[in-house]
Amino acid sequence: MNNKKFTLAQLAEFLSAKVQGDPNIEVTAIVPLQVASAGQISFLDNPKYRKFLAETNASAVILSEEMAEKCPCAALIVKNPYLAYAMTATLFDNKPVAKPGIHPTAIIGEHCEIDNSVAIGPNVVIGDYVKIGKNTVIQPGCIINHDVEIGANCWLWPNVTIYHGTRIGARTIIHSGAVIGSDGFGFAFHQGQYHKIPQIGIVRIGDDVEIGANTTIDRGALGDTIIGNGVKLDNQIQIGHNVEIGDHTVIAAGTGVAGSTKVGKYCRVGGLVGFAGHITITDQVTITAMASVAQSINEPGIYSSGVPAAPFSAWKRNMVRFQQLDSIARRLMQLERKFGEQEQEEESV
Amino acid sequence: MNNKKFTLAQLAEFLSAKVQGDPNIEVTAIVPLQVASAGQISFLDNPKYRKFLAETNASAVILSEEMAEKCPCAALIVKNPYLAYAMTATLFDNKPVAKPGIHPTAIIGEHCEIDNSVAIGPNVVIGDYVKIGKNTVIQPGCIINHDVEIGANCWLWPNVTIYHGTRIGARTIIHSGAVIGSDGFGFAFHQGQYHKIPQIGIVRIGDDVEIGANTTIDRGALGDTIIGNGVKLDNQIQIGHNVEIGDHTVIAAGTGVAGSTKVGKYCRVGGLVGFAGHITITDQVTITAMASVAQSINEPGIYSSGVPAAPFSAWKRNMVRFQQLDSIARRLMQLERKFGEQEQEEESV
Amino acid sequence: MNNKKFTLAQLAEFLSAKVQGDPNIEVTAIVPLQVASAGQISFLDNPKYRKFLAETNASAVILSEEMAEKCPCAALIVKNPYLAYAMTATLFDNKPVAKPGIHPTAIIGEHCEIDNSVAIGPNVVIGDYVKIGKNTVIQPGCIINHDVEIGANCWLWPNVTIYHGTRIGARTIIHSGAVIGSDGFGFAFHQGQYHKIPQIGIVRIGDDVEIGANTTIDRGALGDTIIGNGVKLDNQIQIGHNVEIGDHTVIAAGTGVAGSTKVGKYCRVGGLVGFAGHITITDQVTITAMASVAQSINEPGIYSSGVPAAPFSAWKRNMVRFQQLDSIARRLMQLERKFGEQEQEEESV
Repeated sequence: MNNKKFTLAQLAEFLSAKVQGDPNIEVTAIVPLQVASAGQISFLDNPKYRKFLAETNASAVILSEEMAEKCPCAALIVKNPYLAYAMTATLFDNKPVAKPGIHPTAIIGEHCEIDNSVAIGPNVVIGDYVKIGKNTVIQPGCIINHDVEIGANCWLWPNVTIYHGTRIGARTIIHSGAVIGSDGFGFAFHQGQYHKIPQIGIVRIGDDVEIGANTTIDRGALGDTIIGNGVKLDNQIQIGHNVEIGDHTVIAAGTGVAGSTKVGKYCRVGGLVGFAGHITITDQVTITAMASVAQSINEPGIYSSGVPAAPFSAWKRNMVRFQQLDSIARRLMQLERKFGEQEQEEESV
Repeated sequence: MNNKKFTLAQLAEFLSAKVQGDPNIEVTAIVPLQVASAGQISFLDNPKYRKFLAETNASAVILSEEMAEKCPCAALIVKNPYLAYAMTATLFDNKPVAKPGIHPTAIIGEHCEIDNSVAIGPNVVIGDYVKIGKNTVIQPGCIINHDVEIGANCWLWPNVTIYHGTRIGARTIIHSGAVIGSDGFGFAFHQGQYHKIPQIGIVRIGDDVEIGANTTIDRGALGDTIIGNGVKLDNQIQIGHNVEIGDHTVIAAGTGVAGSTKVGKYCRVGGLVGFAGHITITDQVTITAMASVAQSINEPGIYSSGVPAAPFSAWKRNMVRFQQLDSIARRLMQLERKFGEQEQEEESV
Repeated sequence: MNNKKFTLAQLAEFLSAKVQGDPNIEVTAIVPLQVASAGQISFLDNPKYRKFLAETNASAVILSEEMAEKCPCAALIVKNPYLAYAMTATLFDNKPVAKPGIHPTAIIGEHCEIDNSVAIGPNVVIGDYVKIGKNTVIQPGCIINHDVEIGANCWLWPNVTIYHGTRIGARTIIHSGAVIGSDGFGFAFHQGQYHKIPQIGIVRIGDDVEIGANTTIDRGALGDTIIGNGVKLDNQIQIGHNVEIGDHTVIAAGTGVAGSTKVGKYCRVGGLVGFAGHITITDQVTITAMASVAQSINEPGIYSSGVPAAPFSAWKRNMVRFQQLDSIARRLMQLERKFGEQEQEEESV
């Protein structure tokens, strides 16, 4: 189905690149250097991959000026090869083509404002008072409850659910199974039972956001949950009620952010990280995978916790010792005291 | 769309509250003290927020007798302000209104018993022999396989999937993307391959349960998986086959409970916690976030594991030392032996 | 609805078992030894359950030759009682019966090749150029984008989403809410913004695979994400782009595998495990639950990390000491140096 074909001249114009070699060479795919064959283009960015350049079978390679003379085939010379790769990949992307219009099986509520350029797929259900901006694509099986606003040029993959009141900016992508605006986890304990606290805030999502498959973002209890512009959320992330994620922060899969926590701008968060509720993380913070973030972080930098896996028997010994750690520390102090060692490094528990 | 308006007199009657000030004051929203403006009502429960009372712009505040004289505006005086807030929020809730009846695009199986008061949305698919109690709402895109029973006054948000045989009590709420009754993870290894063990038990869910978005609850292998009355499960929780969760236990997002584990009543479990399989947790146990629960717990109390994130360089040093922990403990013992220190605190590995 | 009934003679033929007792005994269910009643069959495999054999009320028990003489009722004697239980459970399985044919509400694209024996449920949406093999069942609400190939005898439970280009082998089972082929998490940072890198690879899934509810498998960036034959993935697993999972590896719920990591064959991975990206795990590796796998593993064996939960006060003391661990180790070394102890076990940080 994918019969796309471009000459180096065409790609050079698209990428503002300089052609080295025959501009009439045609390429039909972009693939990694080490697996490329004739008729395909590749790219070189990460220095780790330089070793593959000399022996690549690609017909052309996108690379920097610096690497051009080592290229054994034609080349497209650019300033940022990684970005040029990303742009080239858009040309070979085989994703669905969305035709403007509303599929006859879609069910649209009353008082909606849906631009004529919008593409709404089969079995989509849209509630009342929904607004959808130009060129936005709603794939099959998406359910959008009432009073939702979605900006222009967004793309919702199949089976996304959007609860009532949600606001979504322009150019935002939401992957299948994501749930936006579900109730936050709030209960009042009274006479032996938990009573539900209605979650009457909404979710506000900025422009240029991407939300991964099966990620969940809860609506605010009072006030709103906010996802800033340019935020990228991977799959299976959980965002609690009244959380705020600052602009251009990226979060890897499986991470959870508990209620009312604020994460700053340009943060980078690994996978399976847990954030406690009601804490504040400043801008430019990196959290490595599987860390437990229990307290606010006020200084930019890299933060980590957890211990990497070791062979079982070694782990078991160390793990038992961990349970004795306070005793070990106290006994060490006792020895130090006996022999007059300094204890200035010691903090008491 | 939200044009709700109540006088303090109306709210006082609803909440069994005492009005302090003008009972004819009208309010149109409930919001936090520090952001409230004229025409809005707020509440004060958590002592941390007392500082916001004096300067609130709210037209009225729900609070306790004790705080009433410090209120700068009208007040509704109640015994439990948090519960009164929860009740008031129900009045301003903008969630969808469900009209009784079956949408023409819904597909209903044979031999079903569905009360006339039930509201079934577009594109819902219901199998044979399904029973649904009074006033229950099934939102668009839900799929309910055969032989399922759902009690009265339940609410299923869009795109919920219920496998065959599931039993659900009254007043239970299930959020979008939740999957109830999928197969447990059971295989018999034979001649180099894993052979599927059919999961022929079901899931039984009690009354007044809430199940979060994209949470999954597996059916029993033999016998059933049981979720007690009043249990509240947050988003993206995984409940393995033949697990039992006791009444009124609450579990935060991302937690997993492995097969055949029994969690007691009135437990409180943080997010991203892992429970091993085949263990028993007694009643009234609190597990803090990200803990690893590897063994049964027989005493009520608070249990924790894990180490909070630290700056990367400090973490890296401590993490390497963790891998040396058994060696550290042994060397300490050696020194102690040399100098005749007591070792009674030491347990051998 | 479940009126299945078998004589021991029938079961013996099905299981290649030897009957001990009356072959005309009829059984209507298979249940655990300790809860069985007359008219039901049970099985004994795990030695832990031997204590229940003498007092079972079952009409018959599936067991090994060795245990036969201790059986208080009729028996079916087999070589592998656990496998025989799995086979017997298939007979009593009450899962939906799928009738060949395409439901009138299903929407099928152009140029599809769908065998006449395929069962496609209500509200299924299938894109163009999709191929589906014999006897495969697609339950309601599944969305399959264009250019997907699904082998024979597969079973997709409701509300599964398959992105374009995905390849799925024969006899593969996919549970509800699973998302196959969503975009991997790839961005090029340029001038203060993250720019999306189109994910133009696909997902290739082998034969005899099972994929749990709400599990997500991302498509490759360039090149493909590969799930080998016989792989079993539990619920809520996240598989990043360009990951490869070797044949017959089993992974428990909630585990995440970051991009480009290769997991070998016959590995066994616990729940809530995190794998870093770009690492390689050899064959026959076992990873225990909640471990953090940060580096490649080249030797088969069992690997672990993490510390089990302890009562809060003990945990808090040890956790504070963990933050002092490097200091503790250095101070111990100082004492050892002072007293001439050997330090050969010490590795420097």
